[in-house]
Amino acid sequence: MHVSFDELNQQFNRVLLKIGFSEDRAAVCARIFAENSLDGVYSHGVNRFPAFIKLVKEGKINIHASPEVIDENGVIENWDGHLAPGMYTAQLAINRAIALAKENAMGCVALKNTNHWMRGGTYGWQAAEAGCIGICFTNTIANMPPWGGTEPRLGNNPLVIAIPRKEGHMVLDMAMSQFSYGKLQEYELKGKELPIAGGYTQEGVLTTSPEKIYQSKRILPIGYWKGSALSFMLDVLVTTLSKGRSVAKITADKVEYGLSQVFICIEAAAIAADIIEEIITYTKSSLPIDKEGSIRYPGENTLITRKRNEKEGIPVNDEIWQQLLDL
Amino acid sequence: MHVSFDELNQQFNRVLLKIGFSEDRAAVCARIFAENSLDGVYSHGVNRFPAFIKLVKEGKINIHASPEVIDENGVIENWDGHLAPGMYTAQLAINRAIALAKENAMGCVALKNTNHWMRGGTYGWQAAEAGCIGICFTNTIANMPPWGGTEPRLGNNPLVIAIPRKEGHMVLDMAMSQFSYGKLQEYELKGKELPIAGGYTQEGVLTTSPEKIYQSKRILPIGYWKGSALSFMLDVLVTTLSKGRSVAKITADKVEYGLSQVFICIEAAAIAADIIEEIITYTKSSLPIDKEGSIRYPGENTLITRKRNEKEGIPVNDEIWQQLLDL
Repeated sequence: MHVSFDELNQQFNRVLLKIGFSEDRAAVCARIFAENSLDGVYSHGVNRFPAFIKLVKEGKINIHASPEVIDENGVIENWDGHLAPGMYTAQLAINRAIALAKENAMGCVALKNTNHWMRGGTYGWQAAEAGCIGICFTNTIANMPPWGGTEPRLGNNPLVIAIPRKEGHMVLDMAMSQFSYGKLQEYELKGKELPIAGGYTQEGVLTTSPEKIYQSKRILPIGYWKGSALSFMLDVLVTTLSKGRSVAKITADKVEYGLSQVFICIEAAAIAADIIEEIITYTKSSLPIDKEGSIRYPGENTLITRKRNEKEGIPVNDEIWQQLLDL
Repeated sequence: MHVSFDELNQQFNRVLLKIGFSEDRAAVCARIFAENSLDGVYSHGVNRFPAFIKLVKEGKINIHASPEVIDENGVIENWDGHLAPGMYTAQLAINRAIALAKENAMGCVALKNTNHWMRGGTYGWQAAEAGCIGICFTNTIANMPPWGGTEPRLGNNPLVIAIPRKEGHMVLDMAMSQFSYGKLQEYELKGKELPIAGGYTQEGVLTTSPEKIYQSKRILPIGYWKGSALSFMLDVLVTTLSKGRSVAKITADKVEYGLSQVFICIEAAAIAADIIEEIITYTKSSLPIDKEGSIRYPGENTLITRKRNEKEGIPVNDEIWQQLLDL
């Protein structure tokens, strides 16, 4: 079925108010969940909402807590999220990084004890909308072996880079694993193989079989040793800058909460639009692999999906919609 | 053969003075070339030196030019490199970013019209040595197709992230291609296949054959669409922040010069050493694939190579050594 953005937003809002969210906070969180679905990131929109509510009920997310500024050092602020809802705190943090950047050309908020921000791209779009370059990253629970190892010790630690552009912002939102476990599940449910190797079998052979990767837990980092190293460095960066919990500490608790995040903004109101168009045009001039295929800049697909979902409604699984109505 | 660091350094210094470098500038550039070889990055040390001299003689590198500060905005400075030697300007730029970070917690130098910095890691090590986190990136000539395309339109745009650590800094220095063309050549000369797919054949099939990748020019980005997107974003970042030349502009000139680079530093003198050790210990606790194998943090191999080359001398190809003596 398809539902409108407003319908989805209202349902989220209703449930959040029902479990005790304040009005303004419910509005912010409902909007972010609804926008994630509108933009096609269903895994962190409507499909994730019931799991979010569960974590609230389990007390891992404190809906009344507010993030607190605990240190200020030049253009960097250190915040304690006090386990408030992750997307609520993240949009406050990027807003503050935007303000610091407007004042000093660059600004940074390093945040500890926060929760899952759902779609990282949300805060990239927010920075770009405010005329800033946004660079954000988070750690996660361990879900990927380091290069040379067989047991998960690294998070997939998403990295977001956003650059403002009048005709549509450029937003890269990428995890350090080649495929997420959510994506593996999608392929598995359809009975399909992955288009390229996404991990190893238990015997250590590269495989396109989602089942075999589930068995081995050896999901592949992007670029093999390179993504492993980048994921490692992102965890060291978020953890040391925020003085928060590392992937190791988060994983020890077995439930993904109390994360560390960094939000960096660079003022870019006067960014050279002609240079950006030159880069896009040049990149797209590469002879495409398929006649129908096209080369896209990061964020272009999101805008296409957003427009389609605005027009046709947001596709929602019937069962999940019913779950939402029953909440 | 093996030569000592001092011997190599002296030879570089001799040649640079002979072609007209000032004494202090020759000393800086010779040291960087020698350190790159000492650290095992021969491709950007002794093996690259003759090509560097050639570019100087062709006038693409101006040995008398000095970089100039052209704009200051908060914690960001804009520099024009005026085509001075890339490694000379890069070490000045990261030094300035370090100073800005010491003052404001973060600092950035965005640099246009510069030249190849050789090993990007050099400036990461320099930032870490000064107690700063260093994040640096550069664009290059186009050498990689964008995802969905068959002709090179992206640079491999290396990204450097360095984090200071008493027992040995952590330094990630990664290009956006799975293998560099230099690495392909190494495998080709040995008559070996790549350990994993490094690109496509002309027919669009993933291949481990260096020859077939040379033919197709379809080298693989790390993580397929992800590395393609990250490379694109890094070019937009360096070009818009520095107001310099994009991959498109650089490639139009057919020779790799006049690049754009960004150097970001974050003050990290009081970085929590215990958190870093916790992350390293946890990551290394993953059961290794091979009994002899080991899991290493970024920069660990460099330190091992550095110590070995300090003790045993730096391995240099006889022919290249003779070329250097003849310069």
